[in-house]
Amino acid sequence: MEQLNIVVIGGVAAGASFAARARRLNEAARITVIERGPDVSFANCGLPYHIGGEIADRGALAVQSAASLKALLNLEVRVGTEAVAIDRAGKRVELRDLASGRHEWLPYDKLMLAPGASPLRPPLPGIDDPRIFTLRNLQDMDRIVAATSAGKRAVVIGAGFIGLEMAEQLRHKGLAVELVELQPQVLPPLDAPMAALIDSELRRHGIGLHLGEGIARFEPAAGSLRCHLASGRALDADIVILAIGVRPDSELARAAGLDLGPRGHIVVDGFQRSSDPDIYAAGDAVETADRVGGGRTAVPMGGPANRQGRVAADHIFLADKARPYPGSLGTGILRVFETVAGLTGWSEKRLVAAGRPYQTVTVNDSHHAGYYPGARPMTLKILWEPDSGRLLGAQVSGFEGIDKRLDVLATAITAGMTVEDLCHLELAYAPPFGAAKDIVNLAGFAACNRRDGLVSHTTDLPDDPRVQVVDVRGAALAEAYPVPVPSVNIPFPTLRANLDRLDRDRPVVTVCAFGKMSYFAARVLAQHGFAVQSFSGGLKANVDPRTPGKLPSP
Amino acid sequence: MEQLNIVVIGGVAAGASFAARARRLNEAARITVIERGPDVSFANCGLPYHIGGEIADRGALAVQSAASLKALLNLEVRVGTEAVAIDRAGKRVELRDLASGRHEWLPYDKLMLAPGASPLRPPLPGIDDPRIFTLRNLQDMDRIVAATSAGKRAVVIGAGFIGLEMAEQLRHKGLAVELVELQPQVLPPLDAPMAALIDSELRRHGIGLHLGEGIARFEPAAGSLRCHLASGRALDADIVILAIGVRPDSELARAAGLDLGPRGHIVVDGFQRSSDPDIYAAGDAVETADRVGGGRTAVPMGGPANRQGRVAADHIFLADKARPYPGSLGTGILRVFETVAGLTGWSEKRLVAAGRPYQTVTVNDSHHAGYYPGARPMTLKILWEPDSGRLLGAQVSGFEGIDKRLDVLATAITAGMTVEDLCHLELAYAPPFGAAKDIVNLAGFAACNRRDGLVSHTTDLPDDPRVQVVDVRGAALAEAYPVPVPSVNIPFPTLRANLDRLDRDRPVVTVCAFGKMSYFAARVLAQHGFAVQSFSGGLKANVDPRTPGKLPSP
Ligand SMILES: Cc1cc2nc3c(=O)[nH]c(=O)nc-3n(C[C@H](O)[C@H](O)[C@H](O)COP(=O)(O)OP(=O)(O)OC[C@H]3O[C@@H](n4cnc5c(N)ncnc54)[C@H](O)[C@@H]3O)c2cc1C
Ligand SMILES: Cc1cc2nc3c(=O)[nH]c(=O)nc-3n(C[C@H](O)[C@H](O)[C@H](O)COP(=O)(O)OP(=O)(O)OC[C@H]3O[C@@H](n4cnc5c(N)ncnc54)[C@H](O)[C@@H]3O)c2cc1C
Ligand SMILES: CC(C)(COP(=O)(O)OP(=O)(O)OC[C@H]1O[C@@H](n2cnc3c(N)ncnc32)[C@H](O)[C@@H]1OP(=O)(O)O)[C@@H](O)C(=O)NCCC(=O)NCCS
Ligand SMILES: CC(C)(COP(=O)(O)OP(=O)(O)OC[C@H]1O[C@@H](n2cnc3c(N)ncnc32)[C@H](O)[C@@H]1OP(=O)(O)O)[C@@H](O)C(=O)NCCC(=O)NCCS
Repeated sequence: MEQLNIVVIGGVAAGASFAARARRLNEAARITVIERGPDVSFANCGLPYHIGGEIADRGALAVQSAASLKALLNLEVRVGTEAVAIDRAGKRVELRDLASGRHEWLPYDKLMLAPGASPLRPPLPGIDDPRIFTLRNLQDMDRIVAATSAGKRAVVIGAGFIGLEMAEQLRHKGLAVELVELQPQVLPPLDAPMAALIDSELRRHGIGLHLGEGIARFEPAAGSLRCHLASGRALDADIVILAIGVRPDSELARAAGLDLGPRGHIVVDGFQRSSDPDIYAAGDAVETADRVGGGRTAVPMGGPANRQGRVAADHIFLADKARPYPGSLGTGILRVFETVAGLTGWSEKRLVAAGRPYQTVTVNDSHHAGYYPGARPMTLKILWEPDSGRLLGAQVSGFEGIDKRLDVLATAITAGMTVEDLCHLELAYAPPFGAAKDIVNLAGFAACNRRDGLVSHTTDLPDDPRVQVVDVRGAALAEAYPVPVPSVNIPFPTLRANLDRLDRDRPVVTVCAFGKMSYFAARVLAQHGFAVQSFSGGLKANVDPRTPGKLPSP
Repeated sequence: MEQLNIVVIGGVAAGASFAARARRLNEAARITVIERGPDVSFANCGLPYHIGGEIADRGALAVQSAASLKALLNLEVRVGTEAVAIDRAGKRVELRDLASGRHEWLPYDKLMLAPGASPLRPPLPGIDDPRIFTLRNLQDMDRIVAATSAGKRAVVIGAGFIGLEMAEQLRHKGLAVELVELQPQVLPPLDAPMAALIDSELRRHGIGLHLGEGIARFEPAAGSLRCHLASGRALDADIVILAIGVRPDSELARAAGLDLGPRGHIVVDGFQRSSDPDIYAAGDAVETADRVGGGRTAVPMGGPANRQGRVAADHIFLADKARPYPGSLGTGILRVFETVAGLTGWSEKRLVAAGRPYQTVTVNDSHHAGYYPGARPMTLKILWEPDSGRLLGAQVSGFEGIDKRLDVLATAITAGMTVEDLCHLELAYAPPFGAAKDIVNLAGFAACNRRDGLVSHTTDLPDDPRVQVVDVRGAALAEAYPVPVPSVNIPFPTLRANLDRLDRDRPVVTVCAFGKMSYFAARVLAQHGFAVQSFSGGLKANVDPRTPGKLPSP
């Protein structure tokens, strides 16, 4: 066997997966993994849960060690060692041993860059206060663990995935938590209505939300760190978690003259090759093909990182059997206390910003058959290309089974399926799981009904007094959870007999809790000559995610 | 609006869904639903769970009533009325009122046949004993509820989906349960190894299994009904549940001269039209396209029934916008106490029986990231077409997240995806859900490794003494759960240093718990010139589904 000399910079997700796959493909290669930190192969994604105490055993987060990677995969792992320069002409990397400060050059035949990304730390006044933390590795985690205990006050800045996990876990641990987010909603990757359940759950657990608020500066005050918001408000904290995003750690690549994308990501081809054919790159530091939009994207997530690393190893060792990385979708999921929300593909706001045509429906249903105990409500929004019906994205929120629907829709989007195809997915159904018509099927039905012109949708409650808003819920529910605009209550079962209560010359919007009865009502009214729109997704998906579908029977 | 006269025979899943959709598409039609039983629109699938007490409220099973279908959908529902003949030339149906015995003729423009299927009741000696029950509707259920109580002895005949649900629920209720199955395994739609966890769970709960055993006759004995098995053994029962399958209720269709398939199912086209263009049929009574195999199949499940009913209504009212029913996959799932198993598409035994070429791999992993508390093991088997790599089927067993993987794979099969496509499904990952490489990705990797010639697989432990069986698990585990054939234990981390313990001239089979380390070992050995096969799926998927992957650390 030819003995290839392989050097890997970064030893966590993309780097370790690359090295592991390379070893399985080739026993003879010399594979050296260079890692700046003291650990390799740790579970970054688990860090918040050790802070909160859910993952009690810190050791569980160290998936492998330098020693175990040697034993299992015969990898030379050098922790505490930083790569400081790449000499592309000489095909060697300059290393600095962080303990001794010693430099040396390591030659390579093939180099893998898997340096990941670093948390953003904007140059605000006071930003260097030791009470301000970011979270990327075990050492960051240990520092936060040491600084947190029940009763302390935390300010979390950034309400994306990591910020929300931290807010939940700190609250779980008994801290008082205030959450600051520049966007006017939590979980900005999602469309606002689909994040509303998470918003409500955070508030229910006493987390203070400061939305549409930027952080301006930090100021030490008596016994606390004062966080000044752009609006002029101030929050006092014992500890601040900064979780406003990451930027690719691509300085080494930039200095070596490799092509970078507009936001500093390393540009790679389908086989993860950078602009230098002997240098590969993978993980949070790269940009990749957008599987939905066709352009370029960067998805800093564990799955893409691991699988990109594997693709690069295949390209080196499998010759023409190697298959390219097909691009990323942007699938993400989050649990906050009892609630869960996530997305796959493009959101509505992203489609709007890109000026791409789309259509959308939102449906509500139970996560399994309603007659089986424990059914919890869930909301599903899908987006598709108007001409072809091809799916562009999906968002789901609720309590149980959210991951399942996201995964089905991620698979459907990957396959290029249309909304028609969703109608007839034959998903697993027994009472404890799913339903004879799963919410994914219902979304397909609702989308086709819209495409076929059976129903017109609105997601805005009209403020035009000419429009008749007809609330078709039962009277008790309509009274207990009123529609927030003037409306007439005609429970659906009585609608056909009460058509004369409505003015045929004025447009109608039908409203219910879920968007189902309002659709039924819209069909009745349309066939009787009314100009009618159904309030798609109902009050639950547009007004208040905790609106009940039915009042409990007395 | 033209007033079409629509008659529906059978008012539960396919019939009620057809009628509901027809009404939404057309307010003017006269829609009459004829139902022999006293109920319409009830949840057949929930019946076992009311018997067992999990669904405490019997009323929850009555999803709709004649009155609510009138109020919501303006349907004329006639319960207690049997359709006894179809006069195709005269386009009318003969009805018999079961209470009064009166006959009448009802004219139709379009007729929907949704009569479902009946439990098989073979003409065995003693079969008419009142202690022998089948389960199809609420009345059957009420009779079983009345006949069961803790301490009684039940014999369940048939270990398919319904038989196993009944066995579990009766045991849950405190009965002693014996289960008799003609096939040599429980859950015959699955390949035997994938049903082994269910088997083990039934035994763990004290249910007696009599596999490969037919029932020969029933005989009243002192204080019990004696069930004689073909083997000569006998079981004494207070109650017998017969759940050996169903046959389509297609007598009416046969008498009317409609085309029937080889097993008596009504033959329909893609729009659910029978051989008479004014008569549609849907649900358990019909055969349909096989979405995997391309031929004809019959899948007596709730999802297909509901969606086929909807397709027929579309064909009547949506003209050229109607879309055909694309066929059935055969997705099914079952929970038995803590364990869950299911399938989608074709099993290995079905492929073998049909003489169709296939390849398969089985992988094991945790249902979510192993470092997050509560990770449970699961096993996934996939089958694909050798040339194209196109997926043909999948089976999953374990504890949690089984439904999710089945649904992803049902979607992938429907889309015509290949095993290559599974590698890069971007599924939702945060620690409480999934993993950076989900088991679905791993199955794709393992399949590609096999296709690419990186590893050879076996699912049989060799009995040829020439073959060296190398157990690469840790020594403690190897000792506690020994490989059931002679083997040498070389823990994987020590393998590279111990190659000289193996004879290079004799073939090797590597073995571990999960099939992962045995794959790693096979890669090492293959590259050192050994003729080696990995025991795919490991001891867990082939020998004992409860074999631990690791011993708990002391
Ligand atoms: C708190 C947290 C929670 C997360 N949760 C999720 C989640 O739930 N789901 C999900 O999919 N993803 C999650 N992620 C993201 C996921 O962890 C990353 O996408 C993934 O780790 C990226 O892998 P990578 O190999 O590209 O980079 P990293 O895992 O960051 O590894 C890069 C390594 O390279 C080292 N390095 C960088 N430069 C050098 C150099 N010059 N010399 C030597 N070493 C160097 C760094 O020290 C680092 O250890 C989370 C991340 C964090 C921080
Ligand atoms: C105990 C049990 C558990 C099940 N569990 C599941 C499950 O977990 N998942 C799943 O997908 N499926 C399950 N099923 C199967 C599912 O219920 C059926 O596939 C579905 O109900 C079939 O719908 P259908 O409309 O074709 O027939 P049915 O629901 O059987 O309805 C047919 C109706 O037609 C009536 N009828 C027949 N002939 C006449 C006539 N001549 N005149 C008047 N009326 C007539 C019958 O009385 C019957 O009510 C289960 C079934 C049972 C019995
Ligand atoms: C620990 C680490 C180095 C492991 O890398 P790895 O060995 O490639 O990954 P896994 O342990 O998942 O094993 C996957 C390999 O085993 C194979 N495998 C897994 N289960 C198998 C089974 N039951 N049967 C056969 N093969 C199996 C896979 O096919 C794959 O091999 P391949 O790539 O040669 O096809 C790497 O995943 C890592 O560092 N992870 C932690 C860091 C991280 O991912 N952080 C971000 C998320 S928290
Ligand atoms: C009760 C029954 C008659 C209901 O039929 P149905 O009205 O077609 O079914 P659902 O109540 O699920 O409603 C589905 C309709 O509402 C629409 N819908 C559901 N949720 C919606 C939402 N949130 N927004 C918009 N539309 C929605 C669907 O698009 C569909 O309408 P369409 O067919 O016109 O497109 C029928 O399902 C039945 O009898 N079920 C019990 C029997 C049974 O299925 N047994 C076997 C399994 S246990």
